[in-house]
Amino acid sequence: MSQGADGRDPGFLDDLALDGEVSRGTSDRGTHAGSYDTAPDDEVLPDAVVFPESTADVSAVLAAADDRGVAVTPYAAGTSLESHVTPVEGGISLDLTRMDRVVDVRPDDLTVDVEPGVVGDDLNERVARHGLTFPPLPSSGAISTVGGMIATDASGMGTVKYGEVGDWVRALEVVLADGTVIETGTMAAKTSSGYNLTDLLVGSEGTLGVVTRATLELAGIPEQVRGGRAVFPTLDDATAAVRDAVTSGVDVAKIELMDADAAAVANDYSGTEMPERPMAFVEFHADHGVEEEVAFCRAVFAAHDVESFEVDEGDGMDDLWTARRDITYAADEWREGASMGHPGDVTVPIGAYPEMIRAVKDVAAEYDLFVPAFGHAGDGNLHYFAVYDHDDPDESTRAERAYEDLIGRALELDGTVTGEHGIGKGKREFLRREHGDAVDAMRAVKDALDPNGTLNPGTTFPEE
Amino acid sequence: MSQGADGRDPGFLDDLALDGEVSRGTSDRGTHAGSYDTAPDDEVLPDAVVFPESTADVSAVLAAADDRGVAVTPYAAGTSLESHVTPVEGGISLDLTRMDRVVDVRPDDLTVDVEPGVVGDDLNERVARHGLTFPPLPSSGAISTVGGMIATDASGMGTVKYGEVGDWVRALEVVLADGTVIETGTMAAKTSSGYNLTDLLVGSEGTLGVVTRATLELAGIPEQVRGGRAVFPTLDDATAAVRDAVTSGVDVAKIELMDADAAAVANDYSGTEMPERPMAFVEFHADHGVEEEVAFCRAVFAAHDVESFEVDEGDGMDDLWTARRDITYAADEWREGASMGHPGDVTVPIGAYPEMIRAVKDVAAEYDLFVPAFGHAGDGNLHYFAVYDHDDPDESTRAERAYEDLIGRALELDGTVTGEHGIGKGKREFLRREHGDAVDAMRAVKDALDPNGTLNPGTTFPEE
Repeated sequence: MSQGADGRDPGFLDDLALDGEVSRGTSDRGTHAGSYDTAPDDEVLPDAVVFPESTADVSAVLAAADDRGVAVTPYAAGTSLESHVTPVEGGISLDLTRMDRVVDVRPDDLTVDVEPGVVGDDLNERVARHGLTFPPLPSSGAISTVGGMIATDASGMGTVKYGEVGDWVRALEVVLADGTVIETGTMAAKTSSGYNLTDLLVGSEGTLGVVTRATLELAGIPEQVRGGRAVFPTLDDATAAVRDAVTSGVDVAKIELMDADAAAVANDYSGTEMPERPMAFVEFHADHGVEEEVAFCRAVFAAHDVESFEVDEGDGMDDLWTARRDITYAADEWREGASMGHPGDVTVPIGAYPEMIRAVKDVAAEYDLFVPAFGHAGDGNLHYFAVYDHDDPDESTRAERAYEDLIGRALELDGTVTGEHGIGKGKREFLRREHGDAVDAMRAVKDALDPNGTLNPGTTFPEE
Repeated sequence: MSQGADGRDPGFLDDLALDGEVSRGTSDRGTHAGSYDTAPDDEVLPDAVVFPESTADVSAVLAAADDRGVAVTPYAAGTSLESHVTPVEGGISLDLTRMDRVVDVRPDDLTVDVEPGVVGDDLNERVARHGLTFPPLPSSGAISTVGGMIATDASGMGTVKYGEVGDWVRALEVVLADGTVIETGTMAAKTSSGYNLTDLLVGSEGTLGVVTRATLELAGIPEQVRGGRAVFPTLDDATAAVRDAVTSGVDVAKIELMDADAAAVANDYSGTEMPERPMAFVEFHADHGVEEEVAFCRAVFAAHDVESFEVDEGDGMDDLWTARRDITYAADEWREGASMGHPGDVTVPIGAYPEMIRAVKDVAAEYDLFVPAFGHAGDGNLHYFAVYDHDDPDESTRAERAYEDLIGRALELDGTVTGEHGIGKGKREFLRREHGDAVDAMRAVKDALDPNGTLNPGTTFPEE
């Protein structure tokens, strides 16, 4: 952990009349030095942590910081997997967790206004009383905030049916770098009026503005839910079955892949008794006719020699949820002296999914590594990590190469280096490999909206 | 019709080695002086029309024009209802209709690559052989091009189920103002990598770049289609029924409103025998279980005293299609010496739809005007126009006031001034009323990506 490279005295904060609070305490600064996955050596202490309680607070802090060229790094739950919240230049960590109100639920419009600090599950609990739900929550929905989800255009298991978080954002209140408060989008279901700043802000990782309120779309809670687990003879069968289910139009809400290695890790740690075979976990949501959909899926899976496909009226995914919840601990316990590497989240066109999964296993063999694979298969997403001895330089090098090779393979297959975690500070070196000259256009937009570069410096863009 | 205000000799075009063609012929210049609805007095002749046949052509033309500060106004089918394609500064009209190839259909990925000049229905005919469809086509899909649809983020009858055109755009090849060719987005179903330039470009009306290729998502052609017409005792019943169908989650693909005045105009002209009463036209798409959905809708409509609701296995919307096709001619024939005014396309949150429709009738009464109303009710969209004597100064003034009052009312109801036609050159004065200071952020993005202002000048932004 280090002080910010050019940390400045943020004493000016004391002159602002804020509803919220400013802290320079060691404890607060320490807890805001990085995110969930930031390596201790990469943590950087902010000079101050601000807990705004209103849009006016955020505006005042940003305007004052911008005047002085002091960095502002937004922070919420700190669940980033790519160190988005690490204040690499010190300055201010802007903690939005106190702005956590569900401001207004409008069942007549199927929309809700929320502040950025609302936790996903809390939002869903609140709107459930109206029979409504916010469907695109990521797997971290129990702890991560709507603001963070918007900043990364997060997505998760339900994406195959419901799309990404950004697809459900109708309008935003945003504070720009200079403190200007703007409203983007519209409360209407569609618009062709002016530039789509909403979708530009979504996924911009706190580098273009700070979201202080979001209008999100909601959907009815489905009347019927069915969950199931399918076991396939080979990983190729499993991935081809998933691909064909998606392209034949099976209306599936979730379709997750788990390979034999991931199942073995989970069984070993959690005491589950999943078959240590390639599996697809599925969940169906419908208001009527769910059995027809299950039958349709069963027919597609049968064409790929499915060995068993158990479906029930629960979500049928208990083992998967357990495995997901415990995967970090499980991986770290798998082999004496070894622990999990940085998780990848490449995503490829669904037609290329079988090839991408084969690449994981090929690369694992090539570098003699243990690499469990799982992910939101229905949208071509894949999570993977090597389990290796981080103190062994040779194995560490092989793990790093494997990680990079798989990103390269995803790009060859016309995929993206990150389907849901974002670029953050962890994948900046891959931005230009994926986007080429489009990075210059992104940079021009950044410079136009944040000319002093105070918003989340070090995020998204590579140093060039 | 006039020459461009500062039209310059585009002789430099002769030095470019283009695959396509340059025309300075009077006929070509005349056909590119405005769009479908541009008033003759507002037409402006371009100095030249270029018909590019490749991305390299577009790049060469834009780079050369940018160097010389010559305006470039993209053109395709010319179906704009807000004069997007009028070259107000003269210069070059860039006609993309020769770039009309369906480049690659990938049924395994549910995607297709197209050039911008492809006409909507031609695209759908081409992908139908794979059992696929591009569902969000606007009502003009038989004549308008994909490039124009992307430029305006067009939408139409199917939006209530399928969203806007932009929701189906996965990646773009775009030529920026200085001729740089970039690729935005990804071929994967989702991404959190870098800024979402794709959605920024969609709806930017040719002011930020010229799309030369688009990767669009496709869906399976639904197995079951049912169409129907519901007649309600009052307009309030009809709009409340539509609102409740949408918010209760009826899975309806299209839900159109037609008021008694619009029905009367259509009957009079086309010889149809629609009841001259408030009506909702609906269409359902499903792979199975369509009858359950129709029954669900019937129950919702019954709660609003529906008088009749006829449903059959065709699309059930023949009368509506006829009325729509003929509406311009019909309106112009309605009253001796009168013709239709500029059509509005405001869109409001669905909960406010009944109030917006009431406003149309109230404003018509207030100004003593005949204002038929129809529209894509399911997404809160409304089309309306006064039928009046354009040579009568008093009636013309009243019509103009009514148009503006209804836009104002839509904004009061948290709606948007344009749900699908775009701002273009016709609604620029309303941009700031809708977006406030966000217009400055839009302007900053424009200046960053098109610093010389050569791309479609006069579009989107008001003169300030």
